[in-house]
Amino acid sequence: MTYELYYWPSIQGRGEFVRLALEEAQLKYIDVARAGRAGSGEARIMRMLTGRSLARPPFAPPFLKAGRLVIGQTANILMFLGARHGLAPKDEAGRLWTNGLQLTIADFVAEVHDAHHPISSALYYQDQKKEARHATALFLKTRVPKFLGYFESILARNAPRVRFLAGAKLSYVDLSVFQVIAGLNYAFPRAMAKTAGKHLRLLSLHARICERPRIAAYLASPRRIPFNADGIFRHYPELDAD
Amino acid sequence: MTYELYYWPSIQGRGEFVRLALEEAQLKYIDVARAGRAGSGEARIMRMLTGRSLARPPFAPPFLKAGRLVIGQTANILMFLGARHGLAPKDEAGRLWTNGLQLTIADFVAEVHDAHHPISSALYYQDQKKEARHATALFLKTRVPKFLGYFESILARNAPRVRFLAGAKLSYVDLSVFQVIAGLNYAFPRAMAKTAGKHLRLLSLHARICERPRIAAYLASPRRIPFNADGIFRHYPELDAD
Repeated sequence: MTYELYYWPSIQGRGEFVRLALEEAQLKYIDVARAGRAGSGEARIMRMLTGRSLARPPFAPPFLKAGRLVIGQTANILMFLGARHGLAPKDEAGRLWTNGLQLTIADFVAEVHDAHHPISSALYYQDQKKEARHATALFLKTRVPKFLGYFESILARNAPRVRFLAGAKLSYVDLSVFQVIAGLNYAFPRAMAKTAGKHLRLLSLHARICERPRIAAYLASPRRIPFNADGIFRHYPELDAD
Repeated sequence: MTYELYYWPSIQGRGEFVRLALEEAQLKYIDVARAGRAGSGEARIMRMLTGRSLARPPFAPPFLKAGRLVIGQTANILMFLGARHGLAPKDEAGRLWTNGLQLTIADFVAEVHDAHHPISSALYYQDQKKEARHATALFLKTRVPKFLGYFESILARNAPRVRFLAGAKLSYVDLSVFQVIAGLNYAFPRAMAKTAGKHLRLLSLHARICERPRIAAYLASPRRIPFNADGIFRHYPELDAD
């Protein structure tokens, strides 16, 4: 089967968590909005969201078409792919644990976005820049340590036997944590450098995933959209730590 | 089995979505933090989160103890309970659809909270009141119509055959939408009254769920914590529509 991923064509965004799983599992997929003529991709996404053809339309991208199934919500897509393609534990306890971790990552990613858009996603960054400075300072001080500290502690309490978040084997959650670390390093290089000593296990996990052959090939390919100032992780120097 | 729900004892919060499912399915459960002496509940929650006894500790409340399983994240708990106790479709497509809807509710609930705490949950409301007015005005204008419009459209496109969000039968998603409508009515009575005509199907779903015998008994009981100014849904008259 060839999967169809529907996501905005010019950002990594939430779609990137799905792309990483598709790439690591070496699945055939079309990144629909990037596959056709320029500009036609968004139209295909909108047709799926607002058309009358689907009885069960997704709320927003990303969504994945798998044959007749259309699956919305990043964590839901990953749970589906993880179970089908060996990227998650097979037992019930392991599946629930992995999904719970992924939902915690989803919460964190929403907070990353809201730090530069605290008032509303309906306003430009420039129109909430002052509030973003205030929000991001508190985000870096209270939330980043809480989330990274949690994931670090998971790796610590299961070491050395268990090198991945969901157990002895790589799961989609590890790929998502890789993406979060990559994104934070891009957005907040100074803050991340200052606190690196507190989450060495996460940095090691990030490095190990970078070097996996399929991920390395993906990152070197044009399929990997560079980080940019429209995505979730944005580098605004005025928001980074001093 | 007697389930153990771990959640803060004085607010509905995210725990309420789990309580509603436990009540509708008439399951035996202990609301742990409300069951012991005053003040001891929070300590029990914190021991589970920060103690070394669990190899797989949850990130935050609510979490559910089901025998030896400890399940974190509201949508994850509901997926587990829904599958076990007839509160979700049994087929794969239906389960994924229901989980996707629940994750969209989770996104909405986070936005409800952030409208009164746009800068940081580390600050009091009083210290971000001006920003909350700005954020809430845009939230009511752009986000509430988008989310409620989506759920309304799901009910509309499946009517009259399908009266619930996930199909012909009640699922945990319907209970969660009930809670969202109840919360919005409490927090924003003027805004909700003004826009009622746009989501009549959701209001009808809310009313039907109110009248289900087990939910009605629960709502009339002391187990239902009243809405208050510490929860997700808060009534600050200055934030409601004019």
